[in-house]
Amino acid sequence: MRNVLLILSALLMLAGGLIAPANATTSAEAQTELPPLFRAEVKRAKQFVDGMIEQGVVVPVPKDPGGGYTHEQHKRNFRAIYQGGQLYRVTGDETYRNYVRDMLLAYADLYPTLGDHPAKANQNVGRLFWQVLNDAMWLVHAVQGYGEIRDTLTEAERTRIDGDVFRPAVKFLSVDSQRTFDRIHNHATWATAGVGMTGYLLGDQDMVDRALLGSDKSGKAGFLRQSELLFSPDGYYTEGPYYQRFALLPFVVFANAIEKNEPDRRIFEFRDGILSKALTTTIQLSYGGYFFPFNDAIRDKSLNTAELYEGVAIAYAQTRDPGLLAIAEFQDRTVLREEGLLLASDLAGGKAKPFDFRSMLLSDGPEGDAGAVAILRHGAGPKHTALVAKNSSQGMGHGHFDKLSWQYYDNGREIVRDYGAARFLNIVAKEGGRYLPENESWAKQSIAHNALVVNEKSHFDGNVKVADTFAPTQLYFSAKPELQISTASIDSAYRKQSVSMLRSLALLNVEGLDAPVAVDVFRARGKGDLQFDLPLHYSGHLMRVGFETQSNVAARPVLGDSNGYQHIWVDAVGQPDADNAFATWLLDGRFYTYRFVPNAGQEVILAESGANDPSFNLRRERIIIQRVQGVDSATFISILEPHGLYDGATEQTIESDSRIASLRYVTQGEYDLVIVETLTGEKTVLAISYDNDSGKAHRANVDGRQVTWTGYAGRIVLAGGGN
Amino acid sequence: MRNVLLILSALLMLAGGLIAPANATTSAEAQTELPPLFRAEVKRAKQFVDGMIEQGVVVPVPKDPGGGYTHEQHKRNFRAIYQGGQLYRVTGDETYRNYVRDMLLAYADLYPTLGDHPAKANQNVGRLFWQVLNDAMWLVHAVQGYGEIRDTLTEAERTRIDGDVFRPAVKFLSVDSQRTFDRIHNHATWATAGVGMTGYLLGDQDMVDRALLGSDKSGKAGFLRQSELLFSPDGYYTEGPYYQRFALLPFVVFANAIEKNEPDRRIFEFRDGILSKALTTTIQLSYGGYFFPFNDAIRDKSLNTAELYEGVAIAYAQTRDPGLLAIAEFQDRTVLREEGLLLASDLAGGKAKPFDFRSMLLSDGPEGDAGAVAILRHGAGPKHTALVAKNSSQGMGHGHFDKLSWQYYDNGREIVRDYGAARFLNIVAKEGGRYLPENESWAKQSIAHNALVVNEKSHFDGNVKVADTFAPTQLYFSAKPELQISTASIDSAYRKQSVSMLRSLALLNVEGLDAPVAVDVFRARGKGDLQFDLPLHYSGHLMRVGFETQSNVAARPVLGDSNGYQHIWVDAVGQPDADNAFATWLLDGRFYTYRFVPNAGQEVILAESGANDPSFNLRRERIIIQRVQGVDSATFISILEPHGLYDGATEQTIESDSRIASLRYVTQGEYDLVIVETLTGEKTVLAISYDNDSGKAHRANVDGRQVTWTGYAGRIVLAGGGN
Ligand SMILES: [Zn+2]
Ligand SMILES: [Zn+2]
Repeated sequence: MRNVLLILSALLMLAGGLIAPANATTSAEAQTELPPLFRAEVKRAKQFVDGMIEQGVVVPVPKDPGGGYTHEQHKRNFRAIYQGGQLYRVTGDETYRNYVRDMLLAYADLYPTLGDHPAKANQNVGRLFWQVLNDAMWLVHAVQGYGEIRDTLTEAERTRIDGDVFRPAVKFLSVDSQRTFDRIHNHATWATAGVGMTGYLLGDQDMVDRALLGSDKSGKAGFLRQSELLFSPDGYYTEGPYYQRFALLPFVVFANAIEKNEPDRRIFEFRDGILSKALTTTIQLSYGGYFFPFNDAIRDKSLNTAELYEGVAIAYAQTRDPGLLAIAEFQDRTVLREEGLLLASDLAGGKAKPFDFRSMLLSDGPEGDAGAVAILRHGAGPKHTALVAKNSSQGMGHGHFDKLSWQYYDNGREIVRDYGAARFLNIVAKEGGRYLPENESWAKQSIAHNALVVNEKSHFDGNVKVADTFAPTQLYFSAKPELQISTASIDSAYRKQSVSMLRSLALLNVEGLDAPVAVDVFRARGKGDLQFDLPLHYSGHLMRVGFETQSNVAARPVLGDSNGYQHIWVDAVGQPDADNAFATWLLDGRFYTYRFVPNAGQEVILAESGANDPSFNLRRERIIIQRVQGVDSATFISILEPHGLYDGATEQTIESDSRIASLRYVTQGEYDLVIVETLTGEKTVLAISYDNDSGKAHRANVDGRQVTWTGYAGRIVLAGGGN
Repeated sequence: MRNVLLILSALLMLAGGLIAPANATTSAEAQTELPPLFRAEVKRAKQFVDGMIEQGVVVPVPKDPGGGYTHEQHKRNFRAIYQGGQLYRVTGDETYRNYVRDMLLAYADLYPTLGDHPAKANQNVGRLFWQVLNDAMWLVHAVQGYGEIRDTLTEAERTRIDGDVFRPAVKFLSVDSQRTFDRIHNHATWATAGVGMTGYLLGDQDMVDRALLGSDKSGKAGFLRQSELLFSPDGYYTEGPYYQRFALLPFVVFANAIEKNEPDRRIFEFRDGILSKALTTTIQLSYGGYFFPFNDAIRDKSLNTAELYEGVAIAYAQTRDPGLLAIAEFQDRTVLREEGLLLASDLAGGKAKPFDFRSMLLSDGPEGDAGAVAILRHGAGPKHTALVAKNSSQGMGHGHFDKLSWQYYDNGREIVRDYGAARFLNIVAKEGGRYLPENESWAKQSIAHNALVVNEKSHFDGNVKVADTFAPTQLYFSAKPELQISTASIDSAYRKQSVSMLRSLALLNVEGLDAPVAVDVFRARGKGDLQFDLPLHYSGHLMRVGFETQSNVAARPVLGDSNGYQHIWVDAVGQPDADNAFATWLLDGRFYTYRFVPNAGQEVILAESGANDPSFNLRRERIIIQRVQGVDSATFISILEPHGLYDGATEQTIESDSRIASLRYVTQGEYDLVIVETLTGEKTVLAISYDNDSGKAHRANVDGRQVTWTGYAGRIVLAGGGN
């Protein structure tokens, strides 16, 4: 233990970060006393770097595009420079220092000879790689590895590497590629991070200033401006968590270097601590370790990802939030920097506490006024309940036409689903691992979401440019224990039909039930002769459908011919009435009943994705669609009730049927009232005034009795019929 | 620890088992030193029994059928008597003794007043319950609880309980219900176990003899005869593992009592140790903790089941097999008997070793000549590979028409599936939890299995009585490391068409590949104009289909109209040729390629279960069907190749496409030769002579070269084309 503390203090004393480490003299003996997580990381890095060393220094002339040999080799090289430097610092083994030095000297031979990469695809061409982004990633990693060995080199070696690798690389990124460098975009964040960290290492303030303030040092571009514009005030990144994770890395790594070199800048306090906030927000945007699959997300992307190892360690060093230790424990990974050692030591010291996943509203847009993501959570631990209302803006090219959509998690599983991207990453048989055609024809379409669809068209008629100019309005958010609710609206998704949408999603404690129900109050108002479809994409096996259905048993038709409808098989249709408008399914030992108040003439379609899919590109997932035709407006009132238990092992089944007797909807003036009555006669009312005056009292009548509440929304329990 | 040893030796000294325990004086302090697994079990039992005590002694007059109030109450009561007695022995707390005594005195009031249960459904009527089986289960549990307290009672109490509860219960089971008692059936095992254990407790040798030898003591019935006839010599129970688990409990519990009371009988050595063997065989019939879902099995039944807690503890006490400790660790449960304490102590003492899951042939039938189940395993641990060939007999009323079917597990998952039963246990909405109509129309049918179907009819034309009179013949089994193989035949499944079926299933190490491939060599020979369908039910998402298909994209037709065919949706059909007859799917990060040698004119149907299912009773699972029409015979050669890796978290994909270049089939005389060639040119041959003479040499020609092997089957590696 004493040795660990020695190493730790030695590393902490290197407060300059990228500036000259002292001679690392950590013995092998001391390494066995490293905290387990850090020790495992040393072992993993050794395995990789030792393998690279075995192959010798291989620095090929750039030739291939992404995925090709020279591309992959230069990627391997920057990882090896980065980890080799770190290994030298941790182990003191000169093999690593010499390898990193020799590698960089080889780059010093190569770099000055390079022009535009031959696999240039557009004007964002790189030198080592086909696009400038990869060159920036190279620099971010290489400069960190170089920082670990630079002070041990001879003057001649330093001069060569500074002058023939890092200075020209900085010039290439910040001068020759000024257009990219000065964008407000995550590609530019990589570039500014690489340039800025090089500036610190070489003691070149001009580089640092350009990185922080843009190439003209005006502050209109550069890292600080990016930090202002790319995240919302709540640390939300408009493309969604899958991309947020990727964008985060250069932010935290460069911020960490700024903090060490210019502590007076108080970079981690910049904009109310936006950089740490962006990291914790990324984690909040997950359930069961997986990111909410907004937009073109790959669904199996979890917190267990390289970008977050860096982010968690650096943020932990700043905040000492013990919840971050729990995340590191889940990841079972860390990084070979002093922050990783600190984290691993505190984790081994038993300081971890569960990460504080909680209900929150995350505004979207740099000013926080471009919609929001509302997260409502109930309970704690891996089986807690989470309702996510996606009221954020389109999020650019990877965005989906999913305005006011939602998801619902419970019992460790995704119950109300979001499809994510139609893509099998890196799988050759699936279009070489690129986005599949079905990403456009299905995954992005509105009907593929838990969103309202008018006249079988997607929001904004599927036009991204239009979509990017509008955003929903978050009208209200409250996370009080017995009633958590979010309300949002948008009136631009179907401008031709003048449709305004107003949706409230809530977790409501229903008297007599042991878990809250999700409530969905959706008002759609438009003009003309419209069709409204409100789909629910769910996971589970249908146990009971309350209403009669006409089933397509002998041949299964397709629901429509475009905008995603061509991908939906119709299993059955029905016309429920108020008494039987529900369906119950089972997933992983828990039952869920979706119940709704049918509109006059409403039809319900039981369906499945996967039609018109000759290449078997789509997952086959269940859908319930509430459909109303020939009206200008409709209100959809629905609840989702989790109940009971099915345990095949003990052959025990409890409450496999819903415990709710009825769901009713009453509208009085501007008020909406939803009444949930249990089988045992308890009545719980969700009342919405839509009035943001939090002190204002409201009253309405339900079943001949007066109910009162204060503010935007209230929960009222009526005495049971039996009382 | 000293206290634990004291308790342990005290318990072990109660070698008489059901005979008079000494005064238990274990202190609360000592309990905290119990090994964790046992301590948790004490806590769990206390929670249950304390709750029962709180409600007082409730012994209602029998009235309701299964599931009704009086039924459930008498079930709770026997559990409380059983566990109450055990708790008294472990804790010495008289509360438990008094409660068990009072409960039994209440039964002494009730029992003599009872006649046939009013909810009598057939001639197997019980007294306390609607069927005699439940009365037998009551006795098996109650007599064990009674045994723990009987010596502490007054003479008067003992006389009342002996005379008014246990003696009449024994008379009811063994005399009044003699027809059930003398059957060779697991219901009779429960009855003989209850009667025999009562005999030991009351010192009544007449009861014991009737239990062991049948009511006429001739040995034609009774427990010993059941032990001979209900299990095969390898400990396989013909109904399959799901039922084996249930049947096992009275066998091991009664055997344990016999061992303690009449050790000279050496009951655990009876029939070559059949009772311990039946227990370990039950465990061998599982993968990933779940039983192979043969016949009407509920698929989510795992090793974590009450019957096996008793079985594992008792078998461990007999065999000290450290693998059983690993099973107990998986179960995280044990039982409150001395064997449970021994097991928990040894587990806490770190004596567990992984259970030895291995390749084995399990004969079926009392003489071991009614077919068999062959299990081929490769590797170890939760991700090992297992191929299961179900060549067993029909297995009575719960049997499926699945002759020569197979399953395949890999990477912790079931890849080639068996549907199991169409039933949602105890779920009211699904026919009250009973077998669904689809159990007959789908789950039992041949097309719902990985079995050959002739002319769209099920084996034995779906007639159970006929099916029960025939069984497959297991021709060969070998589990040598580089080639594990099982061959079986049956010629009675389609007698009208004179179809003989001969199937070999193997795990073959293919030169150049890192995991063995499953090989399926299926010869079908019949008469007339026949259609052969060979379905493969698999789990996963199709990545690549090698051949052109005609897809049903706009409406999805049904494959047929009866014998299960009405439940199959047709996605696409194709006519592969030798070069492209394969399909690759992805499941849980691993790729699988099913590749076959197409017969002339062969069609392939890509399909899914779930058609004609208006109540959504069926799971929707993928099927590939190889179809040949208008022939009298066909040979199907297929392989299943696991390959590669897909890791969404690290965005890493390796070998997503098959590494096999070709699959060929050569027949020479009686020999079958299957040649697998990899992309790198390595050729591996599976050669089958069908000749059981293990010393005989065989030779054949492949690609102009001579190959030789010895015995029934051989693996030959040919030098690659590049050599
Ligand atoms: Zn989406
Ligand atoms: Zn079956």
